[in-house]
Amino acid sequence: MSDNKMINIYDIAKMSGVSIATVSRVVNNNPKVSEKTKAKVMEAIEKSGYTPNVFAQGLGLKSMRTIGILVPSIADLYMSNAVAHIEDNLHDAGYDCILHCSGYTASEKETHIQLLLNKKIDAIILVGSTYAGSEDETHNTDYIRRAAKEVPVFIINGLVDGENIYCTASNDYQASYDVTTALIESGRNKILFLTDSRSYSANQKKKGYKQALTNAGIPCDEKLMVFTENSIPTVKALLEKDVNAEFDSVFATDDGMAVGAIKYALSKGLKIPEDLSIVGYNNSTLCICSEPELSSVDNKIEKVCKDTCDRLIQILKNADNVPSQSVVACSLVKRATTNF
Amino acid sequence: MSDNKMINIYDIAKMSGVSIATVSRVVNNNPKVSEKTKAKVMEAIEKSGYTPNVFAQGLGLKSMRTIGILVPSIADLYMSNAVAHIEDNLHDAGYDCILHCSGYTASEKETHIQLLLNKKIDAIILVGSTYAGSEDETHNTDYIRRAAKEVPVFIINGLVDGENIYCTASNDYQASYDVTTALIESGRNKILFLTDSRSYSANQKKKGYKQALTNAGIPCDEKLMVFTENSIPTVKALLEKDVNAEFDSVFATDDGMAVGAIKYALSKGLKIPEDLSIVGYNNSTLCICSEPELSSVDNKIEKVCKDTCDRLIQILKNADNVPSQSVVACSLVKRATTNF
Repeated sequence: MSDNKMINIYDIAKMSGVSIATVSRVVNNNPKVSEKTKAKVMEAIEKSGYTPNVFAQGLGLKSMRTIGILVPSIADLYMSNAVAHIEDNLHDAGYDCILHCSGYTASEKETHIQLLLNKKIDAIILVGSTYAGSEDETHNTDYIRRAAKEVPVFIINGLVDGENIYCTASNDYQASYDVTTALIESGRNKILFLTDSRSYSANQKKKGYKQALTNAGIPCDEKLMVFTENSIPTVKALLEKDVNAEFDSVFATDDGMAVGAIKYALSKGLKIPEDLSIVGYNNSTLCICSEPELSSVDNKIEKVCKDTCDRLIQILKNADNVPSQSVVACSLVKRATTNF
Repeated sequence: MSDNKMINIYDIAKMSGVSIATVSRVVNNNPKVSEKTKAKVMEAIEKSGYTPNVFAQGLGLKSMRTIGILVPSIADLYMSNAVAHIEDNLHDAGYDCILHCSGYTASEKETHIQLLLNKKIDAIILVGSTYAGSEDETHNTDYIRRAAKEVPVFIINGLVDGENIYCTASNDYQASYDVTTALIESGRNKILFLTDSRSYSANQKKKGYKQALTNAGIPCDEKLMVFTENSIPTVKALLEKDVNAEFDSVFATDDGMAVGAIKYALSKGLKIPEDLSIVGYNNSTLCICSEPELSSVDNKIEKVCKDTCDRLIQILKNADNVPSQSVVACSLVKRATTNF
């Protein structure tokens, strides 16, 4: 172990009886090197236990078998689960992961993508639909297309067009449409929609909600579409004081906000689901922790991650016909906060 | 951006009018190179926008300013929070992080440490007290001392002796002693101790629990020390069927198990905390999600991570007198599942 680590390009040159320039040429696959010389150098590299990749990085070429992963925040339940699945899949395929946490602003995202590119990674995975849409009004996705000129870019939960960009998204539009329709069919028509984000995914969810209302002939009331923080106490306080409209149900784009609605109902003595139906999103541990247990949309994060990694591995093997976009269906997990 | 990425050792050699062997000597700080040549090469490196570190890695020398982080599982709430704090602190200091998830067996841990060392990292942070103790009977910590011969190793939540090893631990022994004592003083003497781990930290918690009972003159009943899974439904089912002893309170070494005890009490119609007092550990989001809300030990993960990163940065700056061990006090956050 210790020996391998100390071996450098000089040692390989010495072991194979050639100059370091020749070692570099071999690693760079320069056609000027004879097959015989190449064989000698490769033998030395092999004997040393050193991977040519480690040289190659210094020489600006070849793969380090390292994938850059960018998340806005690893403390987020959805994202930490996603990174766990990605790391599992990629490790099995022989890739290492460099993790960066970017935060949510456009400039932070760009900076961190640049930092990852400087590390000579083979590909980037952007985890979180904030990369495909944003609270920032000036947001656009050109920075992703710029990065995709250098390495393949994979996006988890958002669809962005562009060459060398591969996207996997949960079908959040359809899931949101279906949940809203089910609430309407169970007799609700004042459905409070809570969201903490203006990401690609949050926009899809809002569209599904509005379309379901429209199709049922229910007007979309702006007062019932509330932007808030994904925090249990914040949502509880919000519903107690700051919502200027009646509501008979809550549909939240993350489980944390839905649990805030449960806490509000309990403090007001409202019966769940009779007086207030509540649906969350992400099907996290919070759903079976809360009382009553929370109905929630399972957005199939494990399948989304596997699908992303499978295509990444194909792309890095230069496979043809790898689809650039893939959409995964969600499903509603019914528990005690709904009666449908 | 694209230009910088393509620059390699040949370009630098060409730009500075020297051989690539000379560039390598400069980067390696070889005294045989004249100051004049060195200046030329450094100027070319600077102009290119390329960091010498990127060469240096290929040449087996110098820092990549990259820290290897190893966690058994990033899907775990405690660990994902810890990694978020570590990434924040190290990024602010100009370091990147490579994340590996090792799983819990001794052989997996060793393999992943070796993989990280092959990446020419500056230091390793082991996050999780499983690295300092284990369910595996054959476990010992020699693998950490072997790794510490190559780079400084930092351990988050466990104390391991050895040169070049730096540990930060929550004072889990004291916290567990204090919680158990508080339960006894509030009139409980059949305290069910639930744990899902035989890690360093889990052992400290068990020692604290036993010492508090001993000091209060209460015999330690093995039937009241139960090993289980950190899963809400598993613990609920366990308490309903498989605990062969009466208990008037539950102290769990992770919040998930404590919420399982809440679910059990609710299903049995037991009053919390009157009929059953419950205390969790880690002060996670689960505490304010559950109903009633859960009293839990705050093990100060943010402080533990900051302390670890501060010392890591000092060590990599070759500072003297950096303490090898640091212990952080925990505190109990009292909520509705206790009456003290």
